[in-house]
Amino acid sequence: MESIHVKLNEVVLRDGLQLEDKILSIEEKLEIYAALKKAGIQSFEFGAFVHPKRVPQMANSGEFFSRIEKDKAEASLIALIPNLKGAERAREAGVQTVNYVLSISDSHNLQNVQQPTAKSLEDLKEIRWYCGKNGMVLNVSCATTFGCPFEGEIPEERVLEILGEIVLLDIPLITLADTTGMAHPKQVHGLMKRILEQFPNQTFNLHFHNTRGMGLANVLAGVKAGVRNFDTALGGIGGCPFAPGATGNVCTEDVVHMLQLMDLETETDLDGLLAASDLLSEAIGHASPSYLMKAGPSTQKYPLPVTQ
Amino acid sequence: MESIHVKLNEVVLRDGLQLEDKILSIEEKLEIYAALKKAGIQSFEFGAFVHPKRVPQMANSGEFFSRIEKDKAEASLIALIPNLKGAERAREAGVQTVNYVLSISDSHNLQNVQQPTAKSLEDLKEIRWYCGKNGMVLNVSCATTFGCPFEGEIPEERVLEILGEIVLLDIPLITLADTTGMAHPKQVHGLMKRILEQFPNQTFNLHFHNTRGMGLANVLAGVKAGVRNFDTALGGIGGCPFAPGATGNVCTEDVVHMLQLMDLETETDLDGLLAASDLLSEAIGHASPSYLMKAGPSTQKYPLPVTQ
Repeated sequence: MESIHVKLNEVVLRDGLQLEDKILSIEEKLEIYAALKKAGIQSFEFGAFVHPKRVPQMANSGEFFSRIEKDKAEASLIALIPNLKGAERAREAGVQTVNYVLSISDSHNLQNVQQPTAKSLEDLKEIRWYCGKNGMVLNVSCATTFGCPFEGEIPEERVLEILGEIVLLDIPLITLADTTGMAHPKQVHGLMKRILEQFPNQTFNLHFHNTRGMGLANVLAGVKAGVRNFDTALGGIGGCPFAPGATGNVCTEDVVHMLQLMDLETETDLDGLLAASDLLSEAIGHASPSYLMKAGPSTQKYPLPVTQ
Repeated sequence: MESIHVKLNEVVLRDGLQLEDKILSIEEKLEIYAALKKAGIQSFEFGAFVHPKRVPQMANSGEFFSRIEKDKAEASLIALIPNLKGAERAREAGVQTVNYVLSISDSHNLQNVQQPTAKSLEDLKEIRWYCGKNGMVLNVSCATTFGCPFEGEIPEERVLEILGEIVLLDIPLITLADTTGMAHPKQVHGLMKRILEQFPNQTFNLHFHNTRGMGLANVLAGVKAGVRNFDTALGGIGGCPFAPGATGNVCTEDVVHMLQLMDLETETDLDGLLAASDLLSEAIGHASPSYLMKAGPSTQKYPLPVTQ
């Protein structure tokens, strides 16, 4: 059987850091970034061009980019943007790939970007035009695809309808995000089967949070449905500041550990990821929710206790 | 499609409490037990007849049983035993169902019961005869089925060979335990398919620990392979005192939450389980690793923030 390749996009430097109290310095971010690159990570959501007062952790995204810009040829360096102003600031900073976020549910879109989803979809067309004109790549992230903390379940029809509009705009990668960890494996499998059938030429990326312990099971459900792209965050930290109950992203090293055991290819080095995760814990000043950082890989053997 | 029924055996009062520093009183155990019964749990591994110095938390198992014995008709009340002496003590206490534990790997068996697995299999025959003679039901648990912290991977052939011997003894329920959370979903699915094919008339129960975050994914892999019986522990606490790196069992409320979302029947009440888990945290004096206790069910909706 042909081996399955899974592409990971590392979001610790954006979504991962958003809920952390301590603002990381450029130097700290650089150290974590370098360790992740060394471990084989080739795609990064490295920051966001959002209002610095709303998400202080992202305020130095432009400066951070200027320090890693040289890697553009060998790694995808993606910045999240909430609006056209974000795209403009990204362009000024020299960023080539941006990820525009909108929410499938109106309630979360209103909290996140202060306008209904329909207005964000309109704006998307303008941003698409702006990016095209300026030679920038535009991806799109759909928050609350698998449920909204305010509205609850989201009808699949609404997801499909909004995706239908986005797909028309020739977007290389569309991320479907489970913003507050409401997705379950049956839902992920069913919805992704339907989406991949309806949009067979579109590449989709999945973004899970491990809020209710189903993160790894949801990744597998996605793989089984045919998805090959996933967002993960080193240490499993993170969460949306504008979604109540938000907790950490699905953890990079935990995902890689599981996929490696299952003979799925990620082209990353687990030991390298654990070294990076160590730097992360030091930088944020506390242990992360990573299972692997506590337990170590399951291949690890313990010596037999000495008996008398 | 016919709905799938999953039977849960609650192990918090045995495996769950084993690694806790604070020894719970009979009254505290009774309170948790009553709350679990109220939530619909019908099968309990309520304690163990092991050496009280080796596992102090289990020393009051006989006394505890005398307080819940009246429930025998409506709930399965199972005690773990490591040897014939355990079976005899269980009988003296009036216990009708015992669960004999042996390890698939010699190294863990030596740590756990100070003899190689072959000797434990010999003893099993004697215990089987003893239980039959005394009208007791004998189940068997196989520790380290999915990996051993000392030996690493366990060859499937060894598992099948040992199961072959056990199955001959007419054992109602055989538990396959992932003692230190080394199992991964592909392994669980593959091994269980093979086991169920080889022993089509035998009922198997799976016992997972969430050491590396794959607990819920492993439960689903088991269900998919055809297993319908699972051990879970309230709050996700627990672990074997004689296995280095052991951490909590797969968490009852997290498992039930996921299975309910996926339309699998467990005949338990999630709110009732959360109430029981609250009592547990109070009794052990710290928060448990339960996701649901932190995040609440995914059906929970948050009010929209008041905007100015």
